[in-house]
Amino acid sequence: MRTLIIVSHPTLSDSHAQQFLRESLPDEGVRWHHLEHDYPDGQIDKDREQALLADYDRIIFQFPLYWYSSPPLLKQWQDEVLTDGFAYGKHGSQLKGKEFGLVMTTGVNEREYQAGGREGFTISELTRPFQAIARKCEMVYLPSLLIARFDYLSDADRKELLIRYRQYLTMSANPSLLNQEEWFKLELETLGKFQQTDETKATIDLLIEQMGNNRDHLDDLLFTLEELGEW
Amino acid sequence: MRTLIIVSHPTLSDSHAQQFLRESLPDEGVRWHHLEHDYPDGQIDKDREQALLADYDRIIFQFPLYWYSSPPLLKQWQDEVLTDGFAYGKHGSQLKGKEFGLVMTTGVNEREYQAGGREGFTISELTRPFQAIARKCEMVYLPSLLIARFDYLSDADRKELLIRYRQYLTMSANPSLLNQEEWFKLELETLGKFQQTDETKATIDLLIEQMGNNRDHLDDLLFTLEELGEW
Repeated sequence: MRTLIIVSHPTLSDSHAQQFLRESLPDEGVRWHHLEHDYPDGQIDKDREQALLADYDRIIFQFPLYWYSSPPLLKQWQDEVLTDGFAYGKHGSQLKGKEFGLVMTTGVNEREYQAGGREGFTISELTRPFQAIARKCEMVYLPSLLIARFDYLSDADRKELLIRYRQYLTMSANPSLLNQEEWFKLELETLGKFQQTDETKATIDLLIEQMGNNRDHLDDLLFTLEELGEW
Repeated sequence: MRTLIIVSHPTLSDSHAQQFLRESLPDEGVRWHHLEHDYPDGQIDKDREQALLADYDRIIFQFPLYWYSSPPLLKQWQDEVLTDGFAYGKHGSQLKGKEFGLVMTTGVNEREYQAGGREGFTISELTRPFQAIARKCEMVYLPSLLIARFDYLSDADRKELLIRYRQYLTMSANPSLLNQEEWFKLELETLGKFQQTDETKATIDLLIEQMGNNRDHLDDLLFTLEELGEW
């Protein structure tokens, strides 16, 4: 799984959420591509962008939800990069089968995005244009990751967000139980390497061992079920 | 009714539809404000824009539907002009009660905007972000005017479009029969002044006379109905 994160934020260095996400990136398989940094004069290099897209399996648009949509440079990117003949057209889409997801930050509480809430519409309603892009470009649309009121998150919530974000970037969509378990095992092993205290390292090793035991137990159960089926 | 048309189109002079709409404008009460023309360097004058908005009763966003949304400069305009304290916030919205509508051009046939159609979503679904803006800014959202495949329209269809567009700009929303009739009468009188041939002028005069007769007939019927009610 190779993932391209197309970040659009006019004042990225002021955003604690974006800084946090950037520091949460896995070491491998992920590319952070900040449009306002790479194109400060707004002259987008279409050929470079199309080559980049071709190189990745999962495309993420990551942006603050300003007026229920993306910042202007990401809209310009859409209009200039997703051209007829590349992203759609009579010969189909060169993005066909790639995964496409949105990571959005907002200063508004998530529950306000519903009928009767302060924003009145759901995130699924407001992001229809992006769903339509995925459809036109024959991409697989992923459930969005909304990060609401980052500055007010507790440390525990931020840790959970870190895991959810890393999953969003690299875990296969609609994962089976086995996939999720494998993903966590890899994550835990990586964490284990970098942990400072022996105690934490020991805890992580125990968790990995426990997951292995659970897996053996599940395999036993599945075997028993198969046997019963043969009766 | 004073109407501000905020036009966004990166290459306006290439668009036959936009040229047609521009030439269709009524002489009075309407202001054509083309963002890419007024701000070629993308430096939007927020104070000027907010003063402009305050001056008009109906605000129209007019743009080609690129990737199911507006061109980037109109998005930038939203983000920079519709600020907290002006367009929303604890003291309410200075746009409260103004009407807000979209005039969109598209190269795709209108019937493709539905479930099962080539675009998969309706225009009402795709324009949710604009509906949410109207809601947040306490504006009255008008039904949109979609202009599909302008270059393929027949002369008759273009004439109908001209009327629909002028109505969209200046006629009161949800008009009564009487309002519609009055609007047409004014339009016909204006047209009558500018027509070249005596024959056309005579036809228009006849239409106006006929509408007057119809009005008298309607008034008689209403009077009779009232009499019956008193029985």
